[in-house]
Amino acid sequence: MNSTDFSVDRRDIRFVQQELFEVQRLTQLDQFSDFTADDFQLIVNEGIKFAEEVYAPINKLGDETPLRVENGHVVTPPGFREAWARHAEAGWLGITSKPEWGGQGLPMSVALGVLESFYGANPSIYTTSMLTDGAANLIVSFGSDAQKRAFCEKMITGQWGGTMCLSEPNFGSAVGDITTKAVKARTGDHYLIKGTKQWISGGDHDFTENNIHLVLARIEGAPPGPKGISLFIVPKYRLDAQGNPGAPNDVAVVRLEHKLGIKASPTCVLELGGGSDGSHGYLLEGENRGLAQMFQLMNHARLVVAYQGLGAASAAYRNALAYARERVQGIPIEYGKDRQAERATILQHPDVRQMLMTMKAIVEGVRGLIYGVAYYTDLAKYGPPESRGHYQDLVDLLTPVAKNAGADQGFEAVRLGIQVLGGVGFTEEFPLAQALRDTKIASIYEGTTGIQALDLVTRKLQLRGGELFQSLLKELSKLQPDAARSVSVRHAIMEWRESVERLQGAVASVRNLAEELGPRESVLNATDLCVFFGDVTCAYYLLRMALISERALEEKGQLDNGAREAAEEDEEVRFYYNKIKTAEHYTYQILPRSRAIAAKIQSRNFAALDAVL
Amino acid sequence: MNSTDFSVDRRDIRFVQQELFEVQRLTQLDQFSDFTADDFQLIVNEGIKFAEEVYAPINKLGDETPLRVENGHVVTPPGFREAWARHAEAGWLGITSKPEWGGQGLPMSVALGVLESFYGANPSIYTTSMLTDGAANLIVSFGSDAQKRAFCEKMITGQWGGTMCLSEPNFGSAVGDITTKAVKARTGDHYLIKGTKQWISGGDHDFTENNIHLVLARIEGAPPGPKGISLFIVPKYRLDAQGNPGAPNDVAVVRLEHKLGIKASPTCVLELGGGSDGSHGYLLEGENRGLAQMFQLMNHARLVVAYQGLGAASAAYRNALAYARERVQGIPIEYGKDRQAERATILQHPDVRQMLMTMKAIVEGVRGLIYGVAYYTDLAKYGPPESRGHYQDLVDLLTPVAKNAGADQGFEAVRLGIQVLGGVGFTEEFPLAQALRDTKIASIYEGTTGIQALDLVTRKLQLRGGELFQSLLKELSKLQPDAARSVSVRHAIMEWRESVERLQGAVASVRNLAEELGPRESVLNATDLCVFFGDVTCAYYLLRMALISERALEEKGQLDNGAREAAEEDEEVRFYYNKIKTAEHYTYQILPRSRAIAAKIQSRNFAALDAVL
Repeated sequence: MNSTDFSVDRRDIRFVQQELFEVQRLTQLDQFSDFTADDFQLIVNEGIKFAEEVYAPINKLGDETPLRVENGHVVTPPGFREAWARHAEAGWLGITSKPEWGGQGLPMSVALGVLESFYGANPSIYTTSMLTDGAANLIVSFGSDAQKRAFCEKMITGQWGGTMCLSEPNFGSAVGDITTKAVKARTGDHYLIKGTKQWISGGDHDFTENNIHLVLARIEGAPPGPKGISLFIVPKYRLDAQGNPGAPNDVAVVRLEHKLGIKASPTCVLELGGGSDGSHGYLLEGENRGLAQMFQLMNHARLVVAYQGLGAASAAYRNALAYARERVQGIPIEYGKDRQAERATILQHPDVRQMLMTMKAIVEGVRGLIYGVAYYTDLAKYGPPESRGHYQDLVDLLTPVAKNAGADQGFEAVRLGIQVLGGVGFTEEFPLAQALRDTKIASIYEGTTGIQALDLVTRKLQLRGGELFQSLLKELSKLQPDAARSVSVRHAIMEWRESVERLQGAVASVRNLAEELGPRESVLNATDLCVFFGDVTCAYYLLRMALISERALEEKGQLDNGAREAAEEDEEVRFYYNKIKTAEHYTYQILPRSRAIAAKIQSRNFAALDAVL
Repeated sequence: MNSTDFSVDRRDIRFVQQELFEVQRLTQLDQFSDFTADDFQLIVNEGIKFAEEVYAPINKLGDETPLRVENGHVVTPPGFREAWARHAEAGWLGITSKPEWGGQGLPMSVALGVLESFYGANPSIYTTSMLTDGAANLIVSFGSDAQKRAFCEKMITGQWGGTMCLSEPNFGSAVGDITTKAVKARTGDHYLIKGTKQWISGGDHDFTENNIHLVLARIEGAPPGPKGISLFIVPKYRLDAQGNPGAPNDVAVVRLEHKLGIKASPTCVLELGGGSDGSHGYLLEGENRGLAQMFQLMNHARLVVAYQGLGAASAAYRNALAYARERVQGIPIEYGKDRQAERATILQHPDVRQMLMTMKAIVEGVRGLIYGVAYYTDLAKYGPPESRGHYQDLVDLLTPVAKNAGADQGFEAVRLGIQVLGGVGFTEEFPLAQALRDTKIASIYEGTTGIQALDLVTRKLQLRGGELFQSLLKELSKLQPDAARSVSVRHAIMEWRESVERLQGAVASVRNLAEELGPRESVLNATDLCVFFGDVTCAYYLLRMALISERALEEKGQLDNGAREAAEEDEEVRFYYNKIKTAEHYTYQILPRSRAIAAKIQSRNFAALDAVL
C-alpha cells in the first residue's frame, strides 16, 4: 500500500464477507452447492489480483489517451483491448451469470469482493464489462431459446460486447417519453428500429467483434408512456447463417461525449436506422414490456454504481493514509511552539486523522451496506423460501439508498482524500484527482441521486402500506445495546438507536406532509431522507462489525483496557480495535447529520417551492 | 444568462454593496473622498463587463491548451497575453492599490464586485494578477524608497509580474521549517539566494518582460523556525542601470505542475541560485521579519480565495438555473401518472428547486460574508478611529471563516450545479465540469481548510482572552426578531438566534476540551467549528438582507400576502421576494447543520485520535 498505486483492502473484504455476512454459509443453498468456502476465497483473491495487476496499471493511461472515432469505429487506449481479452478469458465478465451460458454463477455477495476491486482499479473498462453482462442477462431472462443460443454465451464470455440503449437526446430520466420507433419488417421476424440514443456506455469499442445493443423503442401503435415501450436486441453486425457477425446493422456512432471522468469508457451518441438499410431489432418476450424488463438491468446497475463509489473511496483512503504516514510536516500540536520537537508525519495532526477516519468510516460503512444488499439479493433469490419476501423487501428498499450512499459518500471520501494530500492531491501525479473526476458520474448515471430518492420516498416507502420499511425496522431491531461487551459500544448502539427513532419520525413526517399538503412538499427533502437511511444503515453494519470485533478481541484476551497497546504490535488486534473505533466515529461524527436532516424536514419550510426562480 | 456562457449577477452585487453595506458612505472617509458613489458604480460595471467580454471567452481555451516550457520559459495559451495587456492597461490589476504607484485606490468592498467577477470568469489568469498586486503591495509596505521606485509602479500597472515564493518541496504548511538560504554578497547590497521553491503560482509566464519573486529565505546564522525567516525581492531579470530588465538572475523553471484545474495558471517549481551566477535577492525592511510581512499578502490572499469560490459558485448557479428553465423532462409530480399532463421544465421538480435554492443561498450568504469582511477591512483601515479596533477584530476572526466558506461551500455549490444538469453536467461541453476542477484548489492553497480552522480555533478565538468572539457576538446582536415586518422573517431570526446560542455553547465546549483534555482533543472538530461560524454568519447577512427586502417590498406595497403574484410580473419585486425566501431556505435547510456540529463536539468521542492508523 502506497500513496500512488492502487491496492485493495483484502482484510476488510474478507471480514465483511466471512465474519459479518458469513457468505460461506451460502454453499449450503442448492444454487451454490457446487462451491466450497475455499472456492469463494480463492476466486475473490484471484479477482483482486487481477484488478491490481491488469486493470490498475492502465487506468491512468486510459484517462490520458483520448478515445477517438476512426472510420466510424471507436478506438480505445493502448492496453485496453488486451486487458479485456484477459478478463474475458479468465471468466471475470460473467462472474455472477449462469454457468450454462458461460458464467461462473457466484453469489453477488461473494462476487462483490472482485467487482468493487475492478471498479476501484479501472472504472472505465469495467463499465463496459458490467453492461455487457447486464445486457446478456436480459436476454437470459427474456429472450427466446434461439435468441439465448445466439447471444448469451458469446456475451457472457466477453467475445461480444453489450449495451443498454435507454436515453435519447431529449429523454433520459423521463424514460416513458422516448421516441425511438420500431416497425415490424414485412419479411423476417425482425423489426426496423429508427432513432437516436444518447449516453450509451460502451456504445462502440474495439474490444470485441460484435456489440449487442439492448434498445428501448416504441412499436408503431403502442400506447403512450411507459406502457408502450418494448425491448429489442440490435446487434452492431447482423448475424450470418453461422451466427457470426455479418453485414453492418446501420448503427452509427454520431459522436463521443467529452467527459470529466471515466474517459476511457466510450459514451456514444448512436444513430439507429439512419442509413438506407435500416437497423434490424429482435423483440424480447412480448410487446410493451420493455420498461419492466429493463429494470432488471437497472436495479443491478444501481448496485453496481454503488460499488463504483465504494471502490474509488477505498482506494482513495488507502492512498491518503499511506501519504499521511510518509509526509512529514510541522510539529505535533501538543508541543506548541517548541521548535526542538521532532517533526511529525501529518498522520499525527488531529485534523488529518479526523479526515482519514471519516474516509475509513464511509468506506467501511458503505461496504457493509452494499455487501448487505448483495447478500439479501442472494437470499431473496436462492435462500429458504419462507424468508425470501423479507430479503426482497430489504433489497427493494435499500437499492436506492445504497446507490446514493456509494455514489455521494464515495465522492465525499475521495474529496477528503485530496484534502489529506493537500497540494499534491490537486495534481494528476497522484491518483485522487482522477478518482474525483471518475467518481462524479456515479451520482448521475443509472438514475441521478434525486431520482433514487424519489424511488425511495414515492415508491419504496409506499409499497404495501409501508411494509418494506417495517421489514427494515425488523432487521435493525436485531441490534440491541445489551449485545455489547464494552460500555463504549453499548453507548454507541444506544446513540444509534436514537437515530433509528429519529428516522421513524422523519418517515412519518414525510408521510404527513404528503397527506396534508401534497406530493411537492413531501418530496422536497427526499434526497436528505435517502441520506438519512444511508447513515442509519451504514452505522448499523459498522456497529454489528464492532460487536464481532469485541468478540474477536475477547478471544485474544485483548478486550479490556481498550487493546490500544496490543493494537500497535499485532496486526489482527489492530484490525479489530480499529473496527470498534470506526463504528464509534461513524456514530458520533457522521450520524449526527441525522439531527440536521430531521430538523430540516420538521421545519416545514418550503422556500424552494415558493421562490419565483 | 444562459446555461453555457459566463455571466455576473449585477443586481445582487449592487444590492450587497449599495443596500446592505451602503458602500457609497465610504466616500465620506478621507481615504476615499476623491470618489463619488457614481464612480464606484461605474467602475464595478466596467469591471464586470471586462470579466464577461475579455476574461470569460478564453477560460475554456486556457483549460484545454496545456501550458508548456519553451527554452526555459513558460508559454501561455493563445489570447492570455493579450488579455493580460488589456487588463493591465485598464488598471484592473491594482484596483485597490495606492494611486501613487499606479493603483486605483478603491475600497476592498467596492473592488470585490469586480474581483469576484474576474475570478468567476477566469480563475487561472486572475490568480497571476492577484499575486502580482499582492507582491507589489508587500514592497509598498516593507520596501525601501529605492525598492518602491524600482518595482511598485511597474508591477501594479502590470508591466511586470509578481509572485510569492513560500513553499518548498519539503515544506509548505510548516513554513517555519523552510530551508532556502540567503547569504550576504561580498560586494553590493544584495544577498545570494539558494533553494528550491514549489507551488509558485505565476512562477513564470510570457505576460510581462520581468517577474518579481518575493522569496522567503533564511539568512545565514538566523534563529531556527519562523523567527529566522526574511523576505527578499528576487527578480527574474536583474535591473540594469536604467532600471530595465537586464541579465538573467538565475531563477530556473524546473517544471510545471500537471493539475486538476486552473490549468492556465502556471504553477512552477523554481530553482533559485542553482547556476554558477547566483540569484540576487534584495532584503525587505529588516532581517527575520519575513513571516509577519508575508502574512500581509496571505491575509489578503485568503479573502481572495474566498471570492474565487464565490465567483465560481455564482456562475454555476446562473448556468444551472438557466439550464433548469430550458430543459424539459418528465411530468410535474402533482400530476402523478397522468400521461396527458404537459411536460415540465426540470425547474418545476422539487428536488431540482431544492438544489438550486441551496446553491442560491450559498452564493448569496457567502457573498454577504465576504463583502462583509471586505467592508470591515475598509473600516478597520480608514474608518473612524474609535471603531477601527472592533472592525479589525471582525476581520481577523472572520478571515479564516470566509476563506473556508468561499472555498468549500463554493465547491459544494458547483457540485450541486453539475447535479442539476445531470448527464450534460458531466461533460466538458458545459462549464460546470471545469468549474468543479478549478474550484477544488480553493480549499488547498493559501492554507488548507484544516489550517484555516486551526487559525480560528487556536489563534483567533484565543487572542485577548476571546475578545474577538465577543466582537462578533456584539455585531450579531444587532439582528433581533423584532426588526422583522413579517411573521416568517421574525421566526427565521428567532431560529437563527438559537444557532448563535448553540455556537456559543460549541465555542465553550471547545475551550473546556482544551483545558480539561488538551490541544489534540480541542482541535479535533476545528474544521466543523469553522463551518459553524460560516453558517451562522452567512445566515446573519441573509437575514439582514431579508429585513432590507421587507422594507423594499413594503414601500412597493407588496409586503402583505407574500408578494408572490407580483413577483411573477415585476423583476424588482421578484428580487426582494426571493431574497426573503433565500434567507428562509438558509435558515431552515442549511443552518440545521449546526445541530449536527454541536452534537459532534459535545459527544466528546475521540475515536480518530485513538485509532491506530
